Amino acid sequence: MSTSLRTWQARFEKLRSNKLFETFVIAIIVVSALVIGARTYDEVSRFEQWLAYLDMAVTLFFLVEILIRMAAEPRLRDFFKKGWNIFDFLIVTASLIPMDESEMVLLARLLRIFRVLRLVSMIPELQMLLSALVKSIPRMGYVALLMFIIFYIYAAIGSFLFHTVDEQLWGNIALAMLTLFQVATFESWATAVLYPTMEQFPYAWIYFLTFIFLNAFVFLNMMIGIVLDVMQKESAQMALDSGEGEEAELSALRGDVKSLKAQLDRMEAALIRQDEGAGKP
Amino acid sequence: MSTSLRTWQARFEKLRSNKLFETFVIAIIVVSALVIGARTYDEVSRFEQWLAYLDMAVTLFFLVEILIRMAAEPRLRDFFKKGWNIFDFLIVTASLIPMDESEMVLLARLLRIFRVLRLVSMIPELQMLLSALVKSIPRMGYVALLMFIIFYIYAAIGSFLFHTVDEQLWGNIALAMLTLFQVATFESWATAVLYPTMEQFPYAWIYFLTFIFLNAFVFLNMMIGIVLDVMQKESAQMALDSGEGEEAELSALRGDVKSLKAQLDRMEAALIRQDEGAGKP
Amino acid sequence: MSTSLRTWQARFEKLRSNKLFETFVIAIIVVSALVIGARTYDEVSRFEQWLAYLDMAVTLFFLVEILIRMAAEPRLRDFFKKGWNIFDFLIVTASLIPMDESEMVLLARLLRIFRVLRLVSMIPELQMLLSALVKSIPRMGYVALLMFIIFYIYAAIGSFLFHTVDEQLWGNIALAMLTLFQVATFESWATAVLYPTMEQFPYAWIYFLTFIFLNAFVFLNMMIGIVLDVMQKESAQMALDSGEGEEAELSALRGDVKSLKAQLDRMEAALIRQDEGAGKP
Amino acid sequence: MSTSLRTWQARFEKLRSNKLFETFVIAIIVVSALVIGARTYDEVSRFEQWLAYLDMAVTLFFLVEILIRMAAEPRLRDFFKKGWNIFDFLIVTASLIPMDESEMVLLARLLRIFRVLRLVSMIPELQMLLSALVKSIPRMGYVALLMFIIFYIYAAIGSFLFHTVDEQLWGNIALAMLTLFQVATFESWATAVLYPTMEQFPYAWIYFLTFIFLNAFVFLNMMIGIVLDVMQKESAQMALDSGEGEEAELSALRGDVKSLKAQLDRMEAALIRQDEGAGKP
Repeated sequence: MSTSLRTWQARFEKLRSNKLFETFVIAIIVVSALVIGARTYDEVSRFEQWLAYLDMAVTLFFLVEILIRMAAEPRLRDFFKKGWNIFDFLIVTASLIPMDESEMVLLARLLRIFRVLRLVSMIPELQMLLSALVKSIPRMGYVALLMFIIFYIYAAIGSFLFHTVDEQLWGNIALAMLTLFQVATFESWATAVLYPTMEQFPYAWIYFLTFIFLNAFVFLNMMIGIVLDVMQKESAQMALDSGEGEEAELSALRGDVKSLKAQLDRMEAALIRQDEGAGKP
Repeated sequence: MSTSLRTWQARFEKLRSNKLFETFVIAIIVVSALVIGARTYDEVSRFEQWLAYLDMAVTLFFLVEILIRMAAEPRLRDFFKKGWNIFDFLIVTASLIPMDESEMVLLARLLRIFRVLRLVSMIPELQMLLSALVKSIPRMGYVALLMFIIFYIYAAIGSFLFHTVDEQLWGNIALAMLTLFQVATFESWATAVLYPTMEQFPYAWIYFLTFIFLNAFVFLNMMIGIVLDVMQKESAQMALDSGEGEEAELSALRGDVKSLKAQLDRMEAALIRQDEGAGKP
Repeated sequence: MSTSLRTWQARFEKLRSNKLFETFVIAIIVVSALVIGARTYDEVSRFEQWLAYLDMAVTLFFLVEILIRMAAEPRLRDFFKKGWNIFDFLIVTASLIPMDESEMVLLARLLRIFRVLRLVSMIPELQMLLSALVKSIPRMGYVALLMFIIFYIYAAIGSFLFHTVDEQLWGNIALAMLTLFQVATFESWATAVLYPTMEQFPYAWIYFLTFIFLNAFVFLNMMIGIVLDVMQKESAQMALDSGEGEEAELSALRGDVKSLKAQLDRMEAALIRQDEGAGKP
Repeated sequence: MSTSLRTWQARFEKLRSNKLFETFVIAIIVVSALVIGARTYDEVSRFEQWLAYLDMAVTLFFLVEILIRMAAEPRLRDFFKKGWNIFDFLIVTASLIPMDESEMVLLARLLRIFRVLRLVSMIPELQMLLSALVKSIPRMGYVALLMFIIFYIYAAIGSFLFHTVDEQLWGNIALAMLTLFQVATFESWATAVLYPTMEQFPYAWIYFLTFIFLNAFVFLNMMIGIVLDVMQKESAQMALDSGEGEEAELSALRGDVKSLKAQLDRMEAALIRQDEGAGKP
């Protein structure tokens, strides 16, 4: 029986790594995404039943697919060692929970949307892109903290000074931060935020202009900092690569010159012996 | 007769590669563009007849020009090997089809607009620029796919949650994606999209801020990735170029040292012979 | 008594450099920031008394903390040598001044906001980030001056030409500069500024388009200039680093070759002597 | 008299290159700029007379200053060889032409604004910045041409299709290009341009999205192209710099090895002679 299990395991592994099977899984994910998209149209309500069947079929297929992938592993715990597998497992099991009460339907739908993310777990190029993105997060952490401090201070000042101008924009520090984010994206910052404020506080432009310049300045420096950082790693790598070839050549050359020296030492000794021999008699 | 044909072919080839002829063709393309532009003014309707004659003359000239270029090739199939020639051929033949019915007039006009693109096929610098653009497309493909996935997921969520707020903005997934694209360009994203949504869903800012940050983050990393990519190729090229000169010099030096060693070997052998000769007697 | 003082000083120094104490100070700063934020909500007025007590406690803690840091220094003047210490001292002493009259309350609150900046003086990574920002200021000085000249000239022209269109936008040179800044951020520049102006001055688009292009052009070149600047320093550093290894190797090699030459000189002299000795007899 | 002339010339040259005199000229330019700015305020009309006197004084000062600079040159034609001198001369002479009729007053004022540009001709750092800007123009020429072609084609299409939607936006090709520029800056592109158009043409989003992507794509590639261009020059320079040192060292080393070889040739000849001498007897 153990041999039969292994045979099955080998078959599942073969199936899992089959290029055609992978393409088929990707196709099913795309179909599942289209079903989600279709649900957002009101006109499709008459196809509701069909969509429900299609959705059930997709859920079943995903269940079978993940069971195949689990069966293909020699030990089950190996399956859960890869982060993307855990992600796939959660997505699939979550969509198995029956949620028919009207309140839960929305949640069930939202869960189904995240199936689209399975595209990332299926396509290696997207996985690489995502892990590159994740790697760059710490690099931006302290800059984000500095920006948050700037936003917090300006929001506190704005909320104390301008809350009489517009309660919607400056009512409390959270609203003020949202307003400042709107200003930072330049959305209606002058017509809807600056000019109404300036009618009551003619010098409000100082507040807004310093905020915009400070933000732009920090952002610009962050960009340059990151490019510099990337370049440093790059050029260090390059120096290492280009150095290897030439340095090897140079040290070989020194070896050659040293063996020349050893030979000359021997010859000089011979010559001196000759000299002495010639001088003696 | 074959000789006469070849003489004509040579003449056409000479004409085609004539700088003055090229400048003249470019001038005609510009005139054709100006005619298209002039047609958009209502006041020019009284010159309509003149514009029609001018348009006919341009069409005729382009026909003659492409026939000259085809005749200049030794074999006709060589003409169709170059992509830009096929493009020119399609543009010229398409404008020859008579389209006088009122419905077709618009299509005929639109076709004539693409004549302006012949500027690209005439000016080598623009051809180079365009081929550089085309080359950079695959590099951006997977990033575009990742962005599309982000847009699709947010659009599905937005469409499920906010369709009660504004049917125009969140009615279905296609409208929601368009709305999200508007948000991504920061156009009225706060005043026209966020604030009306927040009146019904006070925590909608989480949805919008995560979307904006995610987008900006992916875009920023894409930019840095491309700059990095370009730099890698660049520095690899540089290392190759700078390496060539020095490595050649170094290997020549090793050759010199080796020939020194050969000479020393001969001299040492001579010395040993002397020693032995001196020791013998 | 002097020994007892030194013991206390050592204890304070130990406390100051204690990682736990630092974390506690940072936590208090965050609490102080949250208290400021809470004050901006109207609903919190019933907790007013509690917030006042909390604020007093924070003020007292900061006073104690700065006294500990001052006491930890061997000499008091050393404390004031570090810029961030002076900053902390000013923030703490300013919040000690009693300001209970209604007018001063706002000022007192604003002063308390700047306590958040003490985060920068506590976290070394933020200090580094800030000093990197400060270093890049002179690099941008002349570009800012050039931009100011462009803004001033366009504002003067705009104010002379368009003050009849909208007094709010073009009334005087200061308002015109603010309007131009709004145009430079693309905020409602066409719908709210260009189109109303074009109704009276149909050629106003020349003014706005040249301004936008000039600005974008200067900004783009500034960015490239800064990247170039950063790269130059980078590559100079890299050339120095990579050069050190190889140049040292090369000069060692030359030394080796020179010693070979000296040895050969001696050997040649010996040979000549032998020749002469052999020729004499 | 010629000696006296030379003495004066030397005095003027000394004055011109005096640092204090330069600072004074810059101060006068700034005062002149402030006078222009002050004129845009309505409240200053009662100081009108004073401003007129001040303006006259500034004009006179600039006249004297340029005469000093002209007198300081050994030959007058040398003065006009420098582009910035011609610029200064034109600005100064233009402000001397009496323009008192009401119509000409505006022109006279506009001419006076350009005096601010004399700051650029006075401060060498700004001159360098401006010449760097001018140098980067050809690099951007063909990209600008390509962008213009894209704008022209889209404007023609937009003007044919959408002129029924809004005559103000799509009336003719010039208006359509302005509208497209507004879209390219993302100003109200969705709320004021796309959505009204989509009411009549539901597929108009294809037109706008392709336009925005095409534009962003060309712009992005242009940026990368320029950075690449700058880097190529940079790295070529670096390779040259780093190469110089090492290549000189390497060729010196080869010279050393060659002289070793010559010495060895002489020694080998001597040894052979000895061998032959030893073999003979």
